[in-house]
Parts: sequence; C-alpha cells; structure tokens
Amino acid sequence: MSDTIKRITQVLEERKQASPESSYVASLYQKGINKILEKVGEEATETIIAAKDAAVSGTHDDVIYETADLWFHSLVMLSSLNIDPQQVLDELDRRFGLSGLEEKAARTKNNPTSSS
Amino acid sequence: MSDTIKRITQVLEERKQASPESSYVASLYQKGINKILEKVGEEATETIIAAKDAAVSGTHDDVIYETADLWFHSLVMLSSLNIDPQQVLDELDRRFGLSGLEEKAARTKNNPTSSS
Amino acid sequence: MSDTIKRITQVLEERKQASPESSYVASLYQKGINKILEKVGEEATETIIAAKDAAVSGTHDDVIYETADLWFHSLVMLSSLNIDPQQVLDELDRRFGLSGLEEKAARTKNNPTSSS
Amino acid sequence: MSDTIKRITQVLEERKQASPESSYVASLYQKGINKILEKVGEEATETIIAAKDAAVSGTHDDVIYETADLWFHSLVMLSSLNIDPQQVLDELDRRFGLSGLEEKAARTKNNPTSSS
Repeated sequence: MSDTIKRITQVLEERKQASPESSYVASLYQKGINKILEKVGEEATETIIAAKDAAVSGTHDDVIYETADLWFHSLVMLSSLNIDPQQVLDELDRRFGLSGLEEKAARTKNNPTSSS
Repeated sequence: MSDTIKRITQVLEERKQASPESSYVASLYQKGINKILEKVGEEATETIIAAKDAAVSGTHDDVIYETADLWFHSLVMLSSLNIDPQQVLDELDRRFGLSGLEEKAARTKNNPTSSS
Repeated sequence: MSDTIKRITQVLEERKQASPESSYVASLYQKGINKILEKVGEEATETIIAAKDAAVSGTHDDVIYETADLWFHSLVMLSSLNIDPQQVLDELDRRFGLSGLEEKAARTKNNPTSSS
Repeated sequence: MSDTIKRITQVLEERKQASPESSYVASLYQKGINKILEKVGEEATETIIAAKDAAVSGTHDDVIYETADLWFHSLVMLSSLNIDPQQVLDELDRRFGLSGLEEKAARTKNNPTSSS
C-alpha cells in the first residue's frame, strides 16, 4: 500500500479511541456515517468545481487540494465501516490485472482491453 | 507513491495516445473533462449509496467496488488535467505532517491536533 | 401547487401501475430507490457542470435542461417514497413565511431577515 | 408558475440588491457561483442520504426538508445566472407534452410512451 495511505489509515484507527473534542476525525466518527458521507459528497462537488476552473485557468492548486480532501474523507468512510483501504487498491489491481494480461496489454499498447 | 496508483497513472498516460475505440479510458479522454467529471460525481453518489447500505447490512463488497470506481475516475480527471497524483499524496502528507509533529502527535496519542 | 408539478405528479402516480417495459419512469420504479437516487446524484452533477459552463459562456440551455432533469428525478424520488411534493412546497412556504412576517419583510425590502 | 416558486423567485430577485450581511441569500450571491453550486451539491447529497434513511425507517420529514433545501438552492443558482425558473417548468411541460399527445396518453393510461 502507498506509504501515505498506510500512515493515514493508522492515524485514523488511532483516532477511533480519541475524544470527539480532541481532533476533527474523532468528531466525524462521533457524528456518524451520515456526516462522513455528507463530507464525501461535499468534497466530490468541490473537486468537480475546482476541475472546471482548472480547465479554464490552467491553475492546479485547488484541484490538488480538493482531491486530497475527497480521498481523505473516503478513507475516513472506509475506516468508519472497518474496511481496509488495501481492499480498494486490490480491486484496482485486479481490474488492471497488473501482474498479468492487462499490464502486458498496457505495456505493449497494441492490445488495449475494454477493462480500462 | 503507491505501486497501484503509480501503475494506473502509467496506464492512463499511455492511453492518451490510444484511439477512442480502443479502450474505455481513451474514450473518456476524447469525450472531454465534462464527461470525466460526470463520472466522478456518479461514482461519489454510488459510493455514498453503497456505504448507506453497508451501514445497515454489514456487507462491504459494493463499498469497495464503488470506492475503487471513485478513486479511478479521480485519477482519470487528474491525468486529463496533467496533474501528477503524487501532488495529491504530497498534500495529504503535508497535512498529516507525517515526518514531523503531527506524526509524533499521532504516535503519542496524547497530543492530537486540530489538523486531523 | 404548480400546474406543472401537479401534472407530473399525476403521471408519476399512474406510471406506478405500468409495466417496466412501457416507460422510463416505470423502469426506474422497478429498479428501485438506489437507481432513482443515482439519477438524482447524476443530474445534480450535470447541473453543476452546466452552470459552470454557463457562468463562462453566458448560454443557458444546458442549465435549464439539466435543472429540469434534476427536479424531475427528485419528483420520481418523492413519488417512489410516497411523499406528496406539495409537502416540499409547504416547507418552502413555511420558511419564507409567505403569509406572514417574512413575506412582509420581503415586500418592504427594508427589513430582510436571516431566514432567507 | 407555482405560487411558491413565483414568490421565492421574487424574493431572490429582491435580495440581489441587499447587503451581504442582511440575509443568507444575499451572502450567497456575494460569495459567487462556486459557493452556490457547492450548496446544490451538498443538498443533493443530503437528500440522497435522507432518502436512504426513509427507505429503511419510513419517516419522511428529513426527505421533505432536504428536498426543499435542494430546490431552494437550485432556484438561487438559476437566479444567480439570470435564468427564469419558468423556463425549467416549460422544459418539463414540453417533455410531458401536457397539452398534447403525452397528456392524452397519461390520461388514457393504456398508451404510455417512452418519453416518461
């Protein structure tokens, strides 16, 4: 797993024991899954708006910032549901079949498949 | 960077040269940023719905699948805007300050900060 | 209630008896609440994207079209949950207090309130 | 047009002249289209979450409240772009062809069409 994702996951797990006043993540856990999912939806919207602005202006900072927010809150969601983000990365690997045919296809580039 | 994210990013870059008929990603690039952002919004919605179902049923497969879709299409968005996903991971590292104070705080757990 | 909303509501109720093959709405009912909510999320995203384009280009057609899609699918959602859209309009009237203080405030314009 | 939608539209137009401190809507106008669209996305997400809860619990209040928020903020968006909501209702009428064939089809119920 990405070192970054691994570290965030560890921090998120630790925050499950923390008091809601002690950190933003602990307060999200206490507010519950609806509040966490509202944040996922909000950050998806803000990412889309930032990307539309970037497509016009060519500036990238807001897209980077909002995508970080989106990924972060989706990690909080996974943690809240006791899902290991490695399972999401495994699913992505499976689709891209990166130890097998798809990676070969991707490398040779003359045999693209419908899966990506 | 995560091996998975790194490999997907390489595949996405390669698909920029591919004909739209040859792969799903190449067809997304051709349709343009609005179509890519519609997919980000769709997958965010499907992730939220799957998480609501998971919170009731305890089954995780759909959440894993939809989160993979959400992350994947946000990678397509970044690639389309010529943004390296490593910049998003760097932003997450920066917030969690994982080489510094925040990681220390996270480790000791008795000094949580407002940043996470 | 708006004549338009009233007529659509009547059509939606009638389509509950129709076979899924016979109309788009009947097929949505059969697919269930998740599919209907996916459409609400999709159309919200498409409305946001169209509004961003309109803010740059000044053209309105796509915003009108996508907002119609958004309102329509939210009416399908209400119908699917057996909620009368008049209850939503009543809630809006209540907030704007249009038989009372807020309407007066709105009329006089020199006494705007925090509620809107 | 619906009396409710007509009245809200009038209030929204009046608020364009108001100072940002004087009302919530006036502050939204000042913050600009991105903030208004963020609210549309947020309220769509909250509507979807409330509808998922309603499908389990059978309680409707939150769906009514969140749908009112969604419609309200989409009216703010239209107003901000100088689009008359009657144009959205006209588009819905046009699709349902309510002065013509579709309405007839809807009335007879034995001739549903693919348009709705």
